[in-house]
Amino acid sequence: MADHTLMLDEMKRVKGRADRLILDDLLPKSHGVQEVDLLYRMMRDYPQRGGKGMRPFLCVTSCRAFGGEEEEAILTAASLELFQNWILIHDDIEDGSEMRRGAPSLHRKYDWTLALNAGDALHAQMWHALVKNRERLGEARTLDIMEEFAHMIHETTQGQHMELGWVVGKNWQITEDDYYVMCTKKTAWYTAISPMRLGGIAAGADREKLKPLVDAGTKLGVGFQIHDDVLNLSAGSKYGKQSADDLLEGKRTLILIKLLASLTRDEKNRFVEIFSMSRAERKEHVDELLALIEKYKVLTYASERSDTLVSQAISILRTVQWGGNPQAVQLIEELARFAIERDW
Amino acid sequence: MADHTLMLDEMKRVKGRADRLILDDLLPKSHGVQEVDLLYRMMRDYPQRGGKGMRPFLCVTSCRAFGGEEEEAILTAASLELFQNWILIHDDIEDGSEMRRGAPSLHRKYDWTLALNAGDALHAQMWHALVKNRERLGEARTLDIMEEFAHMIHETTQGQHMELGWVVGKNWQITEDDYYVMCTKKTAWYTAISPMRLGGIAAGADREKLKPLVDAGTKLGVGFQIHDDVLNLSAGSKYGKQSADDLLEGKRTLILIKLLASLTRDEKNRFVEIFSMSRAERKEHVDELLALIEKYKVLTYASERSDTLVSQAISILRTVQWGGNPQAVQLIEELARFAIERDW
Repeated sequence: MADHTLMLDEMKRVKGRADRLILDDLLPKSHGVQEVDLLYRMMRDYPQRGGKGMRPFLCVTSCRAFGGEEEEAILTAASLELFQNWILIHDDIEDGSEMRRGAPSLHRKYDWTLALNAGDALHAQMWHALVKNRERLGEARTLDIMEEFAHMIHETTQGQHMELGWVVGKNWQITEDDYYVMCTKKTAWYTAISPMRLGGIAAGADREKLKPLVDAGTKLGVGFQIHDDVLNLSAGSKYGKQSADDLLEGKRTLILIKLLASLTRDEKNRFVEIFSMSRAERKEHVDELLALIEKYKVLTYASERSDTLVSQAISILRTVQWGGNPQAVQLIEELARFAIERDW
Repeated sequence: MADHTLMLDEMKRVKGRADRLILDDLLPKSHGVQEVDLLYRMMRDYPQRGGKGMRPFLCVTSCRAFGGEEEEAILTAASLELFQNWILIHDDIEDGSEMRRGAPSLHRKYDWTLALNAGDALHAQMWHALVKNRERLGEARTLDIMEEFAHMIHETTQGQHMELGWVVGKNWQITEDDYYVMCTKKTAWYTAISPMRLGGIAAGADREKLKPLVDAGTKLGVGFQIHDDVLNLSAGSKYGKQSADDLLEGKRTLILIKLLASLTRDEKNRFVEIFSMSRAERKEHVDELLALIEKYKVLTYASERSDTLVSQAISILRTVQWGGNPQAVQLIEELARFAIERDW
């Protein structure tokens, strides 16, 4: 892996600022009514669990790359973290995920109905945080940012619906193109497209300049997700989630879609059989699936796809008329490379 | 029941306008990707099921009572309906409610994980609708309305957490005062306080004038809820939900809290025993519970409480410096009376 020290230090610094803003200013701390106090602790749970902070970093750095100041984007960056936290609470419930960032997921740590409701409370708190932008950015820019958020969540929930629908419907008739549509919606919008666009909006950049970020962010976000799925199945990664958790959840990853297309008829039947089992039963057959993944070298295929996508993203990013801090422009490119070189 | 025809016609008219706005303009209709198209149908499901429309009516009518025009409040009124729809989707999942407005609840009609996600999509769409206020109301007032919404949802999720926490924790150590705190948060804010305040904000009313609406709306909203709970247990009501559904869900209503305080020790033990059963088992003992409710006349007690609360609300409403359309002021008072006289 190339040396990403400078970029990672900067990402950590921005993530630290966003976290402090969230925990000190944006989320309520305690409440005299005991039950409500528990709700507040639940709202503060995921935000206290760390994470890379790629999205707030992309937002703040894009703002600087477009000639804005960090102060103009930091509240929006923190709101992106709030977004990720509430949607992860709900995703973990929907997917039956057992672990999140190295600890039991919220709906296993507490009652699941309380966790669902805490996700809603955090969602509303995210919008409340975005309203506060009015003090620094003025009202028009504040509303522009909220419009981008609304669009981002619309895309993300569409993607989540597609993926869940495939799992629920036991549907494996999925092409690579279907996967790219789903992954663009489910991951790329909130991971790359909107964080960069929001940085631009916060900086007051011309709307025309933001257009190539959709294409660049799509490729970066999908490349990021494919790499994530490869890490989930690679032994020895520092990955926070339970390894091979994706196989237990039955997630339709590029890896499995490609694998299914490569299998013999007998293997295909066995594959579908294993994925028709309950999560607990399937646990006994994870090694069998990993052996097929190894046999058909689909992790290599997926890694090549993510490399290509991110290279294309970088080419598009180089055409953006940033017009601001050149060092920030460099940091974005470095983040893109990191997205497919990281082992965590 | 007094004759509420004029008020009900007006409520129906406003509800019809809000519904058309939601279904024609605010919610997406169809999508080329088949899975996303299903998401859209799910988002449009509850909004198509009718309902009284008390909240949009209160919002629009308060706007006129404060001297504003209906056009200034209609988008906010429709957003209140969107709010109710997404939170009902999630509440129904959390409470295990089987029916909603005379049809199977969304998580029973479709897969429950898809329903959870559709609730999130609708939640975001509600904020998107609120952003659109900028065209008519200008940016400052639009953001003020969003701030009120954020506060309203914060209160509602606190109330939902309190109620769920009691059910999950099998907690019956609840006083009437605990109930009023919970019910104010869970019901009164989104049913009465915020709808009236939002009407005032949309009309550009002086903030000072909105202050008594918190107290008036608390009493109106709690009175409305207690009456609702009485209807749920009264035979022969035109109520849309499954009758006595509250007993199956184990909802901590004023009726049950008062009942528990009235029971002999043996009856109390039996009461707690029945509520420790699963929903399906408890179904067999609903008649036993209804007999105790009858024996201790707690429906009468609850009705008297809701009557008193709404009378107090009306007294406070009469102190508000509305300054706008006097007929609208009258309609609000009539709605308050209807809240405890209705049989549906």
